[in-house]
Amino acid sequence: MKVKEGDRVLILSPDEKTYLVAVHEGKSIGTHLGEVPVGDAIGMEYGERIYSHLRHPFLVLEPTLEDRMVKVKRHTQIIYPKDAGLMLLKCGITSGMRVVECGTGSGALTIALANAVAPDGKVYTYDRREEFLENARQNVENAGYSDYVEFKLREAQEGFDEEGIDVAIIDLPSPWDGIPAAARALRGGGRIASLSPTYNQVERCVERLIEEGFVLVETLEVLVRNIRVAKGKTRPVDRMVSHTGFLTFGRKALPEVESSSD
Amino acid sequence: MKVKEGDRVLILSPDEKTYLVAVHEGKSIGTHLGEVPVGDAIGMEYGERIYSHLRHPFLVLEPTLEDRMVKVKRHTQIIYPKDAGLMLLKCGITSGMRVVECGTGSGALTIALANAVAPDGKVYTYDRREEFLENARQNVENAGYSDYVEFKLREAQEGFDEEGIDVAIIDLPSPWDGIPAAARALRGGGRIASLSPTYNQVERCVERLIEEGFVLVETLEVLVRNIRVAKGKTRPVDRMVSHTGFLTFGRKALPEVESSSD
Amino acid sequence: MKVKEGDRVLILSPDEKTYLVAVHEGKSIGTHLGEVPVGDAIGMEYGERIYSHLRHPFLVLEPTLEDRMVKVKRHTQIIYPKDAGLMLLKCGITSGMRVVECGTGSGALTIALANAVAPDGKVYTYDRREEFLENARQNVENAGYSDYVEFKLREAQEGFDEEGIDVAIIDLPSPWDGIPAAARALRGGGRIASLSPTYNQVERCVERLIEEGFVLVETLEVLVRNIRVAKGKTRPVDRMVSHTGFLTFGRKALPEVESSSD
Amino acid sequence: MKVKEGDRVLILSPDEKTYLVAVHEGKSIGTHLGEVPVGDAIGMEYGERIYSHLRHPFLVLEPTLEDRMVKVKRHTQIIYPKDAGLMLLKCGITSGMRVVECGTGSGALTIALANAVAPDGKVYTYDRREEFLENARQNVENAGYSDYVEFKLREAQEGFDEEGIDVAIIDLPSPWDGIPAAARALRGGGRIASLSPTYNQVERCVERLIEEGFVLVETLEVLVRNIRVAKGKTRPVDRMVSHTGFLTFGRKALPEVESSSD
Repeated sequence: MKVKEGDRVLILSPDEKTYLVAVHEGKSIGTHLGEVPVGDAIGMEYGERIYSHLRHPFLVLEPTLEDRMVKVKRHTQIIYPKDAGLMLLKCGITSGMRVVECGTGSGALTIALANAVAPDGKVYTYDRREEFLENARQNVENAGYSDYVEFKLREAQEGFDEEGIDVAIIDLPSPWDGIPAAARALRGGGRIASLSPTYNQVERCVERLIEEGFVLVETLEVLVRNIRVAKGKTRPVDRMVSHTGFLTFGRKALPEVESSSD
Repeated sequence: MKVKEGDRVLILSPDEKTYLVAVHEGKSIGTHLGEVPVGDAIGMEYGERIYSHLRHPFLVLEPTLEDRMVKVKRHTQIIYPKDAGLMLLKCGITSGMRVVECGTGSGALTIALANAVAPDGKVYTYDRREEFLENARQNVENAGYSDYVEFKLREAQEGFDEEGIDVAIIDLPSPWDGIPAAARALRGGGRIASLSPTYNQVERCVERLIEEGFVLVETLEVLVRNIRVAKGKTRPVDRMVSHTGFLTFGRKALPEVESSSD
Repeated sequence: MKVKEGDRVLILSPDEKTYLVAVHEGKSIGTHLGEVPVGDAIGMEYGERIYSHLRHPFLVLEPTLEDRMVKVKRHTQIIYPKDAGLMLLKCGITSGMRVVECGTGSGALTIALANAVAPDGKVYTYDRREEFLENARQNVENAGYSDYVEFKLREAQEGFDEEGIDVAIIDLPSPWDGIPAAARALRGGGRIASLSPTYNQVERCVERLIEEGFVLVETLEVLVRNIRVAKGKTRPVDRMVSHTGFLTFGRKALPEVESSSD
Repeated sequence: MKVKEGDRVLILSPDEKTYLVAVHEGKSIGTHLGEVPVGDAIGMEYGERIYSHLRHPFLVLEPTLEDRMVKVKRHTQIIYPKDAGLMLLKCGITSGMRVVECGTGSGALTIALANAVAPDGKVYTYDRREEFLENARQNVENAGYSDYVEFKLREAQEGFDEEGIDVAIIDLPSPWDGIPAAARALRGGGRIASLSPTYNQVERCVERLIEEGFVLVETLEVLVRNIRVAKGKTRPVDRMVSHTGFLTFGRKALPEVESSSD
């Protein structure tokens, strides 16, 4: 896999700082270890090196999904990979699915969703704040996922255009505002996931999900603890992120039909 | 989406017990709430109900990736979704990729990997224990991912057949046994991930990764804490899984060429 | 330190099961490794052995404060040592202090409080359930702390008899019921601590503390994770207690006097 | 309880910053809210207020054990209250006991131990670094516990002067260096506790404890997670201390005497 003009690559300094940059002929970036001629990466294999003008080697790496998510330009707090990873699995989001995301934010989760539904599925992402949507659109384009995403400027309460969707993701300060619309848009057996920082939001969100007939409703939080590994001195790191948010999941049951037990 | 003969569906009892079963005309399963005629699900929409002979309603749901993973027939401890989810993201595994898995175990992670690389990629999974490989093969087939997986009976130390792979996953009691072969099989910039329960394994694994020239080496653990949500009585649950394993990640740098800095 | 008739000792089997028993001349207890003549411990040093009739050695140990707490006869969930330990430190409970405990329960925390205030202080413990109080009284007596504890059968809302106390501990389903009475009983600068399992209790408790003028109000939870240490195979244990309760602390400010700034 | 000349008090600003200061006639301290005449606290009740020259009220509070520990002048990382609290309980340290501490550091744990053994017990604390010992001596004196502590300048391997002690606390980079001496100094049934940041230390420490015949050996870590409580917006805080150290405990069995089972 050779790097081409316009590709976004992850540049890694010898002291393991990372830079996600689009490479263009003649382009260079300033770093604490000198000017790095990132244009020189064109035509290279990933895993090769370019050199700063101070002759420090910088590795040319392919951005992972995590890199693309955490390096978005942020207008808001973005979802953490720890949360996104479990959300994708528990919602069973996979190639070909149609997903509604309510609360685009900076688009980090949009990128993860687009990656999961590509190449045949689609993400419909809604936000009521135009400047956020515009920033997210740029982030998604930079990450190379524009083909799989439609951006819509709208309030959650106004409902979604889609029907029969597979998964709805709610990332709103008032998640309950998006739940009725999500319940209508979801097909039978479709999954919903909501991310909220406070227990109060979770409590009200779960209550609303149960009112709407969702089943297998569960709430959890994901914690990641880094380990500092060094021969003879291995230990958990001193500090960690304690809390990003609670994740709530559910699946849509269709309304019981009266005559079904006759 | 209607259920068809032979589909594997998730049956949900009114008290939220789940059964992952293949549906066949006339088939029924025994439950604590009576015999459930799962064959009746054929032709239904997901989210609809079938009734036990005691007239309890059972929902017909589509299995998520998580359901397919945790419901495999186990010969070994399987990977937890919390670990698999983050692993997929951090390794950037996506549609079209070629992945080597070393230590097939019961095939739960194989299913997650196959789901991520489908429809155009491939998972090559190695295990030295024939009966485990056979069980995993069955599990992968049941989950519907056989097209994306090749099973190989072999010791890690004997090396892999593939070259230029995107990602290598090591799930061995002695992860260092698989690292040199993985380093050879990976393309430049390719990712490696290893899962081990003990600190000692992690320490030796990281040491070996660094010797082999991997960069961005990091180790972490993922914890999931369930929250019991009830109006006015919301709290973390009493007990949780404290530890499954440590995850170690790295990326392959190509060897530095002598003349590159001339 | 020799064991005397009537002492309560901790008997440890070779496979590390523990028995907290009062020793009496001629007494023996049944165990999975045979009858153990605990009366033989009289006159021994702690750390010596007695033998079951099957000739298995059992160690005679002195109960620690933790042993005395966790081995009480339980009518209720008892406080965990992890919570009690931090509570004692943060409340600064020390020899000679006067402490009110509201919600005696099984008396495990009462024992820890009594141990901290002995030999010159006193614990006044209130519970509205007579049979719980009687059980706790027996537990405290068994642990040897009766001299430092007064038991009172009363509802929290009826107030406490004491004034100018140093510390108030609230362990009630409705902690706010005990806070006004505690605020009146505490001297200026006195500490309050409350233990509650749910977020909802914590939220209302903190609100009430602030209304009553408490300062340095903080809420936290304590988690303990056991490590399985074995040469070359060291790792956190598989499962842990995820949640016992949240601890809330505060200190009493005296009301501001109008003329104080003249 | 009135404040007297020379008492150390905790001064609390309106925005909840704390200052631990000795009060003397005419003394004042500079704060971000103006000069605070702490000498004015003399004769006041705890819980009353003094005013800065900018007329901001500052509360006069009594330092808790936690305050005295965390406000020591530090030459080293000090033990966290979360760890000290559980250590005191599990070691069963109580009034009248004799405790050896090996690795005085800044004396924070020394203060907690002295508080627990007062008024009739004694803490013998050893450190090989003279300047640390001097700093710790000053910290212990400031906290008011000098009567209960003896400071000794010595390496752990040289052994302790005491015999028949109740508890030994090891806080050394090489805890195994102190274990044989501790085993000799402890009475039968006496407790040992060791605090170490790395799993490698723990592994070797546990191995040595077992060689020395300690029983009920266990290792754990304590985590504290703060909760931000606000009406309708309650949640765990964003960041937390992930790791301070592992705690290892054991109890001393006396050597088995040959003839004991005759």
